[in-house]
Amino acid sequence: MKLFGLVFFLAIVCIAATTPAATGSGAEEPRYTPDNRMLRPDHYREWVWLSSGLGMSYTPGPADGNPGFDNVFVNPSAYRSFIATGKWPDKTVLVLETRSSVSKSSINQSGRVQGEMTGMEIHVKDERRFPGKWAFFGFDNSSQSGTLIPTSANCYSCHKQHGAVDTTFVQFYPTLMDVAKQKGTVQPGY
Amino acid sequence: MKLFGLVFFLAIVCIAATTPAATGSGAEEPRYTPDNRMLRPDHYREWVWLSSGLGMSYTPGPADGNPGFDNVFVNPSAYRSFIATGKWPDKTVLVLETRSSVSKSSINQSGRVQGEMTGMEIHVKDERRFPGKWAFFGFDNSSQSGTLIPTSANCYSCHKQHGAVDTTFVQFYPTLMDVAKQKGTVQPGY
Repeated sequence: MKLFGLVFFLAIVCIAATTPAATGSGAEEPRYTPDNRMLRPDHYREWVWLSSGLGMSYTPGPADGNPGFDNVFVNPSAYRSFIATGKWPDKTVLVLETRSSVSKSSINQSGRVQGEMTGMEIHVKDERRFPGKWAFFGFDNSSQSGTLIPTSANCYSCHKQHGAVDTTFVQFYPTLMDVAKQKGTVQPGY
Repeated sequence: MKLFGLVFFLAIVCIAATTPAATGSGAEEPRYTPDNRMLRPDHYREWVWLSSGLGMSYTPGPADGNPGFDNVFVNPSAYRSFIATGKWPDKTVLVLETRSSVSKSSINQSGRVQGEMTGMEIHVKDERRFPGKWAFFGFDNSSQSGTLIPTSANCYSCHKQHGAVDTTFVQFYPTLMDVAKQKGTVQPGY
């Protein structure tokens, strides 16, 4: 009976230790509604952050006078796989969170700090679900699910042509770009 | 014997599941050298990111023509505690990573993306170690340990006067500021 007790105790400890709810990872796998909308990941702010840019634009023109921040997060399991291989595994979820920027805030006098959230877009790799392996979903700030962006949208062609690794803009994630170079997974001429 | 095998198996699974090396948290507790330098946290880039600013300055003056990014991370256990209570627990480690910014990079035409790392500073709460509970350490890019910044430095007085929560600039971390307001832990008149 003591052994049964020990087995039971260890099993409970194991379940508690591996339950991700409070650890920041939460549900990592992409989830969808029956009508093919993507569910908003609950805890993406606790995933691994890759980088932030301010006022980024891929087309020439004057600088935005009211630039927004782009914050990019990835689910931890995909991150670990990338660190090991320089490649994104199936079920990779890249979250782009956009926020306004503010200059005068508290004691800050110049430059820009992050303000209110303005939107979210997800780039997800789900090989059996999408013919091109990857898809983009757009989320309104208030909605719990996102809309599939059709493959005719130019985000697909631009990411395919200019993504440093597997249609993703790893060139903007300094620590991952170093990994991709080491692993030899950078797309030539991106 | 089968039960012994099961106990052994469960114990190994438990150890593997709770070992943080590959999960992103790494060693979360602050660690020091015998001569009171602070050891660089190995995996802070996999901790919880709080926010990034660009070209931030607390003194009036013209905007920096070559602004740097400030990226702030916190150890996951302290983050979870803050989410639950609006307060920082003992052994909180806040890492400020500074990076250069670049405008023309890959297909980016305007705004700023993140470049090379330029430095690191840590704000650590270690109640039994520091008379004021908190201390700042400065790290060179190449060194594995950081230097204690003396309490006469103005970062201490500025954080004490202007930190929204417990001498920390939670006012610049939008998601945590919402928590602090809900929990009633914001310092009046910060």
